Amino acid sequence: MTLRSHPAETIAAAHARIAPFVHRTPVLTSRRIDGMVGARLWFKCENFQKVGAFKARGAFNAVLSLSDADARAGVVTHSSGNHAAALALAAATRGIPAYIVMPRTASETKKAAVAGYGAEITFCEPTLAAREAAAAEIQARTGARLVPPYDDDAVIAGQATAAVELIEEVPGLEIVTCPVGGGGLLAGTALATRWLEPGARVIAAEPAGADDAWRSFTSGVRVAQTSPDTIADGLLTSLGIRNFAVMMACVDDVLTVTDASIIEAMRLIWTSMKIIVEPSAAVPLAALLEHPEAFAGRRVGMILSGGNVDLDRLPWMAQ
Amino acid sequence: MTLRSHPAETIAAAHARIAPFVHRTPVLTSRRIDGMVGARLWFKCENFQKVGAFKARGAFNAVLSLSDADARAGVVTHSSGNHAAALALAAATRGIPAYIVMPRTASETKKAAVAGYGAEITFCEPTLAAREAAAAEIQARTGARLVPPYDDDAVIAGQATAAVELIEEVPGLEIVTCPVGGGGLLAGTALATRWLEPGARVIAAEPAGADDAWRSFTSGVRVAQTSPDTIADGLLTSLGIRNFAVMMACVDDVLTVTDASIIEAMRLIWTSMKIIVEPSAAVPLAALLEHPEAFAGRRVGMILSGGNVDLDRLPWMAQ
Repeated sequence: MTLRSHPAETIAAAHARIAPFVHRTPVLTSRRIDGMVGARLWFKCENFQKVGAFKARGAFNAVLSLSDADARAGVVTHSSGNHAAALALAAATRGIPAYIVMPRTASETKKAAVAGYGAEITFCEPTLAAREAAAAEIQARTGARLVPPYDDDAVIAGQATAAVELIEEVPGLEIVTCPVGGGGLLAGTALATRWLEPGARVIAAEPAGADDAWRSFTSGVRVAQTSPDTIADGLLTSLGIRNFAVMMACVDDVLTVTDASIIEAMRLIWTSMKIIVEPSAAVPLAALLEHPEAFAGRRVGMILSGGNVDLDRLPWMAQ
Repeated sequence: MTLRSHPAETIAAAHARIAPFVHRTPVLTSRRIDGMVGARLWFKCENFQKVGAFKARGAFNAVLSLSDADARAGVVTHSSGNHAAALALAAATRGIPAYIVMPRTASETKKAAVAGYGAEITFCEPTLAAREAAAAEIQARTGARLVPPYDDDAVIAGQATAAVELIEEVPGLEIVTCPVGGGGLLAGTALATRWLEPGARVIAAEPAGADDAWRSFTSGVRVAQTSPDTIADGLLTSLGIRNFAVMMACVDDVLTVTDASIIEAMRLIWTSMKIIVEPSAAVPLAALLEHPEAFAGRRVGMILSGGNVDLDRLPWMAQ
């Protein structure tokens, strides 16, 4: 039984597996934002999730899916932040080692979070090649299992559980939308929506400065992200292979947004809802602000992916 | 039946009166903060309240308590912000005029909120004398009823309902704590706690730079606040007469804190809980950080009073 052959069963199993260890996050609404955008929005608040991001779901599912024999030597990954913290927490919870490769450029907030969960951190240059090489070296040396940040069935099935809870809680959603970076959340969200609310449109939202998913979606060919330029620091990576395949099969549209819209959406969430979301999490609301016609009058479920921001480097502060 | 003679009945009536119009705000917890402070905390999130602050409770109770004849000419108040927005919303909800006197120095966020609810704003100098004079002039001219920001039984009974909900939801609280400025929230919280959880200690938290409540409490004589100096911009006013009387009768202690502790507590709430609170709302947690011995090992209910901050002027930004 695989995610490809049995998505519903695989996602349901993931949900049962991780439920004791992650938060069932609240779904919030804002009349003020609804009035501004001319649609009805339900926000799934993964900023309140363990480690401050949906990534806890995929990491716990991957770690808890391992056999005892496979788990013993620990897990390893490379990540710009939230997946790293999530895997560190999941490994600590199971009592196995976690080896984390992080780019030197990751925010201090995220480095501190990973270290706080007791993981062993290896810093590398901020390129995919450098990250993969460092992770492979650790894998070879320790026997640890690689848990990729997004291009992995267990991770995708875990991320899908956020949309499962959102759809369970809000009947009749007409659109489900989330940000896309590597595509773990997007693939999971799309599979969950096709399963539980098949009539709903799935819309991915992406920074224009890191628009490989949009270029892949419109061309039908997976293209890599090179030199991304956006404040949405969780969405810099290239779409994964599995993630691309699910996107082409199950996603209805990909909308891109400017950084200015992302900042506007982020401030709107902070001021109207009094909750903290990171720039990446504001990308779907930015898509509503930039492309209102795609959402007008609809019942929209939106995944707020995370809330880990460096309060000393907010995007509207003078640099 | 008055608040003085029948506090329980008066507060219960206020709660029934305002419940259809205000949010029953959530009570949140944070294992991380509990671990840091060595106590168990329950946060009553009035930052999620209508207008972003507990002030909606008192304002709605005051406006809804008026007879139709008294209400017709509208209501007037002077306020540095949250009470103004709350009264404007309550008046708009009842369909009567609201006249708001605000100091020119109020934050842009708060000015915009008041204007957004359709109130007529009169700006004045940032002194109590100037505010009272401007409000009296409007009262004489329009016949509007004065709704004071805190020194008023209907307002105090309304503010008390936050603690009512907190105590209903969390059995066995040993301490209930809130910030003190004019004392509307403190008096309401103290009366509600004496009624529903009489064994609990009521602790007021106050900025050292605006410590008139502490000086009044320790001397037994109500002293006015002159030239306050604190980032907790909701707590600059002097304790009211009714508020002082309730404090002397029902409050167990007043603890003062530095602005540095307030900023530390505010950042701790933002980063650990992913929610936005204003500096005034962080004052009770600052008291836990500065005076841990007063709370060690206890079950503590804490009212997070509001979440209206100017994102362009956060206290840790360079000025």
